Amino acid sequence: MSPSDTAPSDKALVPFVSVDHMMQLIHRVGLHQMLRGIAGAIHEDFLRWESFDKTPRVAAHSPVGVIELMPTADDRQYAFKYVNGHPKNTREGLQTVTAFGLLADVDTGYPVLLSEMTLLTAMRTAAMSALVAKHLAPQGSKTMAMIGNGAQSEFQSHAMRAICGIDTVRLFDTDPSATAKCAANLAGSGLRVIPCQSAEDAMEGAQIVTTCTADKRNATILSDNMVGAGVHINAIGGDCPGKICG
Amino acid sequence: MSPSDTAPSDKALVPFVSVDHMMQLIHRVGLHQMLRGIAGAIHEDFLRWESFDKTPRVAAHSPVGVIELMPTADDRQYAFKYVNGHPKNTREGLQTVTAFGLLADVDTGYPVLLSEMTLLTAMRTAAMSALVAKHLAPQGSKTMAMIGNGAQSEFQSHAMRAICGIDTVRLFDTDPSATAKCAANLAGSGLRVIPCQSAEDAMEGAQIVTTCTADKRNATILSDNMVGAGVHINAIGGDCPGKICG
Repeated sequence: MSPSDTAPSDKALVPFVSVDHMMQLIHRVGLHQMLRGIAGAIHEDFLRWESFDKTPRVAAHSPVGVIELMPTADDRQYAFKYVNGHPKNTREGLQTVTAFGLLADVDTGYPVLLSEMTLLTAMRTAAMSALVAKHLAPQGSKTMAMIGNGAQSEFQSHAMRAICGIDTVRLFDTDPSATAKCAANLAGSGLRVIPCQSAEDAMEGAQIVTTCTADKRNATILSDNMVGAGVHINAIGGDCPGKICG
Repeated sequence: MSPSDTAPSDKALVPFVSVDHMMQLIHRVGLHQMLRGIAGAIHEDFLRWESFDKTPRVAAHSPVGVIELMPTADDRQYAFKYVNGHPKNTREGLQTVTAFGLLADVDTGYPVLLSEMTLLTAMRTAAMSALVAKHLAPQGSKTMAMIGNGAQSEFQSHAMRAICGIDTVRLFDTDPSATAKCAANLAGSGLRVIPCQSAEDAMEGAQIVTTCTADKRNATILSDNMVGAGVHINAIGGDCPGKICG
């Protein structure tokens, strides 16, 4: 390509799924059906684990957060996700996590799809949690303690209902307004929602305990004597400095 | 963010520089001025080398090419480039290299600019080559041998003219039609363009030898006895398997 012949061809156009498109897709398909579909795709991918190029994520840490690239590939498709984790963002009216991702053709190296992955990450994380709980949590689990009631807690609750069949969530957050917002957003979800006064209170009778926090100031959530035998612990996001979860 | 309140805000909008926008920018600023500006920015960045997070690129290799992510950051800005290298693409009417990149804010993790980097990579590579040649090639170099006459060779020629002041390029390619196209595109560039019959022929009287190929079938371009004392060799793109350059 020389500077004189670069008018964009149709090969230069990459379809883009915006947040608005993703919302339309969720409304069209239904959130629970989306979550079940994503969990099904993850399950299928685990069954062909050896076919993936499992490159470790590449993280750039700063004092206030982390930015990560997460590439993977099989012999036909390449994909990566850009995702940040900045716990202090919510205090500035921004989201803790934003993400987008790209799908490309291994044969040509050409991008084939660019997508928002803020919503998709929320759904994928919830679907992954629920898929694991379906296999590891006690059979017939009906109650989940949901500790940390930010945005992700709603997706976690929906996925545990859609995929594991829980019927009750017991909410706790150090910020009571977060619990109130989560409870309000889960009204009509088919879940019984019980706001609680402490983490211990939330865990009362729960077969599944999900922790979903990103704040280093409250990094210890669960201690040994709080968790009964057989309880399934689902700790979201505590995978590196800056995304601490008890 | 819950599924019910995710209508895109202005914070969700990331400016995008398309190939068409980049072409407009090149035409507005002028290619030589763009190349000098990019070389100047690279020079300034080398002077503060220690301020960068120098993460190695992450490469996904396949039998026919490579897809790479190239992240870097300082304490204010994070950036990465997606770039492929598929030498066989040109035989299918596609480009060997396509690229795009993202600039993000380290403090929030939010993307602030998405840009095509196919043209930008071509210009940056040429500017880097010329910046190095300006410091390492013989003073007063006027003639460059340009071996490999694909798209990148035109950018190399322009940059060596704009930044190092060469006035003559001697072209050779194993494909004579590539040489003819390059020569035609460089007409009016202010460079004297001399098509040659062999690599040895092209190197006659050259103070700078630039190799710019991506084909494993012709990986050896220069041998010791072909290169005279003091000649500056500028070997483009031979940084990993799949992007071999002698």
